[in-house]
Amino acid sequence: MGKNEREENGVDPENHNQEEGEKKKQLKEEELSVERIFENQEVPSWRKQLTVRAFAVSFALSILFSIIVMKLNLTTGIIPSLNVSAGLLGFFFVKTWTKLLHKSGLLRQPFTRQENTVIQTCVVASSGIAYSGGFGSYLFAMTERIAKQSTDTLDVKKLSLGWIIGFLFIVSFLGLFSVVPLRKIMIIDFKLTYPSGTATAHLINSFHTPQGAKLAKKQVRELGKIFTFSFLWGFFQWFYTAGDNCGFTSFPSLGLKAFDNRFYFDFSATYVGVGMICPFIINISVLLGGIISWGLMWPLIEDRKGDWYPADLSSGSLSGIQGYRVFIAIAMILGDGLYNFLKVLSRTLLGLFHQLRYKDLSSELPVADHSSDVRSQSQLSYDDKRRTQLFLKDQIPIMFAVGGYVAIAAISMATLPHIFHQLKWYYILVIYTFAPALAFCNAYGCGLTDWSLASTYGKLAIFIIGAWAGAAHGGVLAGLAACGVMMNIVSTASDLMQDFKTGYLTLASPRSMFVSQIIGTAMGCVISPCVFWLFYKAFDDLGQPESQYPAPYAVVYRNMVLLGVKGFSSLPKNCLILCYVFFGAAILINLIKDLVGKKWGRFIPLPMAMAIPFYIGSYFAIDMCLGSLILFVWEKINKAKADALAPAVASGLICGDGIWTLPASILALAGVKPPICMKFLSRGNNAKVDAFLGS
Amino acid sequence: MGKNEREENGVDPENHNQEEGEKKKQLKEEELSVERIFENQEVPSWRKQLTVRAFAVSFALSILFSIIVMKLNLTTGIIPSLNVSAGLLGFFFVKTWTKLLHKSGLLRQPFTRQENTVIQTCVVASSGIAYSGGFGSYLFAMTERIAKQSTDTLDVKKLSLGWIIGFLFIVSFLGLFSVVPLRKIMIIDFKLTYPSGTATAHLINSFHTPQGAKLAKKQVRELGKIFTFSFLWGFFQWFYTAGDNCGFTSFPSLGLKAFDNRFYFDFSATYVGVGMICPFIINISVLLGGIISWGLMWPLIEDRKGDWYPADLSSGSLSGIQGYRVFIAIAMILGDGLYNFLKVLSRTLLGLFHQLRYKDLSSELPVADHSSDVRSQSQLSYDDKRRTQLFLKDQIPIMFAVGGYVAIAAISMATLPHIFHQLKWYYILVIYTFAPALAFCNAYGCGLTDWSLASTYGKLAIFIIGAWAGAAHGGVLAGLAACGVMMNIVSTASDLMQDFKTGYLTLASPRSMFVSQIIGTAMGCVISPCVFWLFYKAFDDLGQPESQYPAPYAVVYRNMVLLGVKGFSSLPKNCLILCYVFFGAAILINLIKDLVGKKWGRFIPLPMAMAIPFYIGSYFAIDMCLGSLILFVWEKINKAKADALAPAVASGLICGDGIWTLPASILALAGVKPPICMKFLSRGNNAKVDAFLGS
Repeated sequence: MGKNEREENGVDPENHNQEEGEKKKQLKEEELSVERIFENQEVPSWRKQLTVRAFAVSFALSILFSIIVMKLNLTTGIIPSLNVSAGLLGFFFVKTWTKLLHKSGLLRQPFTRQENTVIQTCVVASSGIAYSGGFGSYLFAMTERIAKQSTDTLDVKKLSLGWIIGFLFIVSFLGLFSVVPLRKIMIIDFKLTYPSGTATAHLINSFHTPQGAKLAKKQVRELGKIFTFSFLWGFFQWFYTAGDNCGFTSFPSLGLKAFDNRFYFDFSATYVGVGMICPFIINISVLLGGIISWGLMWPLIEDRKGDWYPADLSSGSLSGIQGYRVFIAIAMILGDGLYNFLKVLSRTLLGLFHQLRYKDLSSELPVADHSSDVRSQSQLSYDDKRRTQLFLKDQIPIMFAVGGYVAIAAISMATLPHIFHQLKWYYILVIYTFAPALAFCNAYGCGLTDWSLASTYGKLAIFIIGAWAGAAHGGVLAGLAACGVMMNIVSTASDLMQDFKTGYLTLASPRSMFVSQIIGTAMGCVISPCVFWLFYKAFDDLGQPESQYPAPYAVVYRNMVLLGVKGFSSLPKNCLILCYVFFGAAILINLIKDLVGKKWGRFIPLPMAMAIPFYIGSYFAIDMCLGSLILFVWEKINKAKADALAPAVASGLICGDGIWTLPASILALAGVKPPICMKFLSRGNNAKVDAFLGS
Repeated sequence: MGKNEREENGVDPENHNQEEGEKKKQLKEEELSVERIFENQEVPSWRKQLTVRAFAVSFALSILFSIIVMKLNLTTGIIPSLNVSAGLLGFFFVKTWTKLLHKSGLLRQPFTRQENTVIQTCVVASSGIAYSGGFGSYLFAMTERIAKQSTDTLDVKKLSLGWIIGFLFIVSFLGLFSVVPLRKIMIIDFKLTYPSGTATAHLINSFHTPQGAKLAKKQVRELGKIFTFSFLWGFFQWFYTAGDNCGFTSFPSLGLKAFDNRFYFDFSATYVGVGMICPFIINISVLLGGIISWGLMWPLIEDRKGDWYPADLSSGSLSGIQGYRVFIAIAMILGDGLYNFLKVLSRTLLGLFHQLRYKDLSSELPVADHSSDVRSQSQLSYDDKRRTQLFLKDQIPIMFAVGGYVAIAAISMATLPHIFHQLKWYYILVIYTFAPALAFCNAYGCGLTDWSLASTYGKLAIFIIGAWAGAAHGGVLAGLAACGVMMNIVSTASDLMQDFKTGYLTLASPRSMFVSQIIGTAMGCVISPCVFWLFYKAFDDLGQPESQYPAPYAVVYRNMVLLGVKGFSSLPKNCLILCYVFFGAAILINLIKDLVGKKWGRFIPLPMAMAIPFYIGSYFAIDMCLGSLILFVWEKINKAKADALAPAVASGLICGDGIWTLPASILALAGVKPPICMKFLSRGNNAKVDAFLGS
């Protein structure tokens, strides 16, 4: 994962706090030449890089990360980059395994960094499906449950494990085939940065040096400790959640009034960890968004109840206050998305134009604001030579790629209309004609900026196909399905290219990367729906606005498609004006951010991050800010230690709590209910309850 | 404080974990000669040791520690030694003060260790009254509230601030005059150890060396941090206590069933801190006592409901299950007290016998098992010479002491019967005739073993005077009042002698010690009743068995005097047999503990500590064991740091939470009630409540 969701939370976490550090490190390390350190290590053939143990470990980690991503999808939709945890855990498992074998004398093949890259690639591909599968967004938006909240009576589709797996298998491999022929151009000729891929490669390289292995061991130990704590904390919390609004997740830690406006610390280890990984500005943006919306706007709008909207509506009705929440959030997300789409697109085109004009592909990189890449490359370093040599050694025939794409596209066109009969074959044909171009754009933009705009392309598909089909002809389902098709293609395309970059830097073969990505994607197509199914069956209130799993993007996506098919007619009074204001504000804020330069720009909040609490409230913002605060204090006390261990601590918090959801959902499925309710009552209510229970 | 209560919790904490360390340190430091370090520092005259700033700081600290001791009195009656915190905070305040003055050029007199000793003495004397004043025991036992719980209809006395202050002033100074002439014999001739006094002296000496001051600064910073945390935690908890059984103090952290049997962690920072100060064996004993009583015996006895005792009694009735709880606890306390009384008495007599027989007072100390004191003292070291010289310089005329005793005794005899008309003047005469002997015994025994048996002497007075007066002639009140008179005399006597030892080791004059003790006692006679009054008025449920402040010893003392005046007739079925068993067991356990030697003896629990949870349950035992666990883990990780900072951390926890009770009680007095109730309901009840609130 780690790329698709970047667009959802507005920025890639690594882009800000890790990339720069990694870049400096890269510069320094390249001066020292990484590949000289590994000179004496033989690089195994691409077939030998694909070991059974690697895929066994990948499978286990895929389940782990799918659960975590699914949980994040269904709670807030904010998903931090879990690359570091995946890398760490992959290294830890295989290292332990090979150590054990080594001791027993059974070890035939040592653990190489190429193998580590294969694991990393496979896990990222697999758990990426948990995001791009749309379980928290377009797919879940098709259900009756979400339609009820949107108060529309248009098409719904009953979820079932069978068609979801089928659908994913049909659409998830196209992206891979669409960009695989372009790998040489992107990696060797354009020398695109792919910050996440580069960071991951450096992490893996460092693990396999003796000093790096020592640090990794320390990090793993810390991760293990925090993991255990976080898991037990989740377990402990469970006992007190016998009913709705029970337990620590409903703890009015800032008072009952603040709780009613969703300002409270909900003791979620996950989001404290997420806050530690995300850059400070994201956490601040989320909190700011919460304060502006739930602290200011919603109370003011609620005062207009009966005037702006009917007073007798249910609290969840989109014609009431909930409508303002959803549509203003959508406006901000779309504004931000549009701005970034245009920005990345113009950069892509500008970059391409330069590339093609100067033609001297192997010399300078012409993108103006990527100064670190501008240094002269006319003399290829030892590292570059060796990496290029190995990268070009194993070829993937271009006919294989084209053939694969056409074959899968044909299969899709034949089968998809059977799954969604509203999605006509000609819609699919249109999508598949433009998809390779968009996939290339996304992979190229991602290489430059580390932003994957997958969900923006998805939203584009929603509006275009939704409007084309129209409300009467199943435009809702057609739009949402088209969104899924589009998202899967563009997101896997940029994923693959990131992995190629990682492979390039760790001397892993492009073939092994490709195979690993295919296997990972296949795993994801089975694991993710199963994990989702577990949540879906275990938690009855999945998708309900005030439940543990509100799945906020499901409602947002459904309402986007409704806007597409029905226009603005259903919006409550003044909502449209507010939407325009926030749409404009999102663009303006982004523009200012880019204009003032990095120095001040980093203090300007991100509209995308601000939009999320508009709908679900700011409780998770408080968790995340607490994570930031912990990191901040830790850095003040011991910067070196914080830098080395904070990602491990954050991963431990996220993974421990994430894994607890597995037994929690199994308990829920088995009908085991927690014994105690920790309830929070106002003094008046408490007196009443005491009298009631006493009598 | 730190001595009187030692008997209540069965052992002096310092006796076990600090004394030995300090003794070794003492040996080592004496080889290095402490006084040589201070050679160049002039010792101020005794008048100059008594500065206004010292008493100003003492006054502030007295209030702080009175509040803390009062809180501990009224919650469990377990009071750890707060000497270290008093020493640290006293040093901190005066040091800051003198530093500020020094900077502004106004400092006329530097801060000396003698002045520090004066502060320490004054604070200990003052907050000692909070314990020996019996606010959690004999005094509170006189009230109607406690009488109702004991279901007796005998004499009660309405509390009022006036007579309590008067009573304390009359009885608290006698102890000082009764032993002051003996100071040379005890300190110089007998060379008694007084472990607490010695430890305090070493602490003060160390503060005034440059290295010690640095450590002290570190400790103070740690204390400050933890203090703030603990205070804020107390504040935070307050918001959730809108009703009975609300808030963190009712958190069923081990499940509802365990909570019903009072096994839960109640999040009290105070008792976690207490657990860190108390030796492991005390914490284990308390937990063991809780398991035996609430985990085993009470459930078994409750099964006999209707057979052993009537089933229709209120839960608080002493004729029912509550009776077993109270009387078995009393039996254990009395068994332990009796054993230790006889043990210390025999040691005292044996010691005296040897002292007088060998007469060569300045040479060997004849007490067999105090090996560290047995080393040859024939050649006085430099330290001893200098200390002895200064100790003997300022004399207190013996006629002043005798005169003072007789005068105060006469005043008491004339006034006490006006306060308690059940306490006839001849009872008082008898007490005052024997008191000096008992005071001497206690001071001597305390010097040998660091155990003050003040409350045992008090219980002796309860039974003797109670039985003498008889139920019909106000025996209850007479017994309790006599207990108060006796306790105050013997406890202040041993306090004073400890302070003389501290003064001896820090070159503070006996005169300044005596004056400081008198001023401290006078402060305590006013501060303690006022602090108690604050609690009494602020918390309506003070003394109720399941409230925040159950004041367990009040019920225990009332029932002891009832046993004295009425005999065993009121006990429920089989209770007397169980009492005999536990009385015997307490003696037996002590005997085994002494017989097996230190090596194994330290693993044998203390009956006195085991008895406390019999009545109030073991929630505080879980807090204390958590404190032990934290200390244990900390010592495993970093022994040096834990040893240096654990007392400061524990003090911070205790002081912060203790001080929070001040604003909490002021809020309660002002009628400000917390807004939220954090309630814990079983799943069934929760469903009912939800239905009730929903309708």
